[in-house]
Amino acid sequence: MHENTKKEVALDRVRRYLEPGPVVLVSSQHEGECNLMTMGWHMVMAFTPSLFGCLISAGNHSFELVRKSRECVINVPTTDLTDEVVGIGNTSGREIDKFAHFGLTPESSEQIDTPGVRECYANFECRLVDDSLVNSYNFFIFEVVAGRAEAAPAYPETLHYTGDGVFMVAGEIIDRHRQFLPQML
Amino acid sequence: MHENTKKEVALDRVRRYLEPGPVVLVSSQHEGECNLMTMGWHMVMAFTPSLFGCLISAGNHSFELVRKSRECVINVPTTDLTDEVVGIGNTSGREIDKFAHFGLTPESSEQIDTPGVRECYANFECRLVDDSLVNSYNFFIFEVVAGRAEAAPAYPETLHYTGDGVFMVAGEIIDRHRQFLPQML
Repeated sequence: MHENTKKEVALDRVRRYLEPGPVVLVSSQHEGECNLMTMGWHMVMAFTPSLFGCLISAGNHSFELVRKSRECVINVPTTDLTDEVVGIGNTSGREIDKFAHFGLTPESSEQIDTPGVRECYANFECRLVDDSLVNSYNFFIFEVVAGRAEAAPAYPETLHYTGDGVFMVAGEIIDRHRQFLPQML
Repeated sequence: MHENTKKEVALDRVRRYLEPGPVVLVSSQHEGECNLMTMGWHMVMAFTPSLFGCLISAGNHSFELVRKSRECVINVPTTDLTDEVVGIGNTSGREIDKFAHFGLTPESSEQIDTPGVRECYANFECRLVDDSLVNSYNFFIFEVVAGRAEAAPAYPETLHYTGDGVFMVAGEIIDRHRQFLPQML
């Protein structure tokens, strides 16, 4: 998985990875400084353009990096990265270099300067397109401008945070494709 | 589960149920008309006040009901309601009474007029507090003003939509409470 065997994800297919609500790792970079944060407050907002909304608290070191660079990468970890997810969420980029500390590999992005996390199974490069609710809610709206993901397994186990240090694990699937109207797929 | 055995959820604990990203059923009501929709694009936005953001497409019958009444209930279904979740997402309230059609029971709310769905394991009564991004993104910000949930099981199986008629199932948990800093819990 640490080889770069990822395939391009069409931009209108980003919901496939983010709508289930996994915890993600946000990578950010500004003027040579790079950081990672764990984030659970996010949502898909549109297919085309591919929009993604999320909350980055002003208390986080990542807040200023993202606000100034106006970009980030949304990286989707699987359960094999649980220790890293917990560690990244419980440390501050003011004190440590999180990529180095947690042994994660910066992976060059295609459309933006901020690197992604190679060990994550999907990466979405984002540009800030609406900061009108940043001051009031710390709410950022990004356009996803490039995406890639491992092709297999199709539905790897992801982490879904409940608070209190407890994650739910998703992985098993229920396929009801045949019950959907074509226009609803 | 169809008896009303739910317990009150403290408003700053709503993330416990919604942050994992389950598909939810939105109930809405305006001038005697009531509807249900299936929704996957939502997120927690604050603990106190308890804020919740979500996207209700202007093409949905629920959009005008919610915009006019300025309230809704966010109901969290479990996998035993998969048929209802799929059915509600593939029909329109312009054509059918969804509560009746899917055999669901309206449950009176405490703080608002709109009823919840008794068969769902958790219900969150919401008042619209910010509609500034409704015109541009169909994005609504609600304050959760009352919440209740079944006490057991603690982590029931929830549905997490990926598109294409496929849901991931979350239920299994990973508990890393002891690895968290107290201020991060």
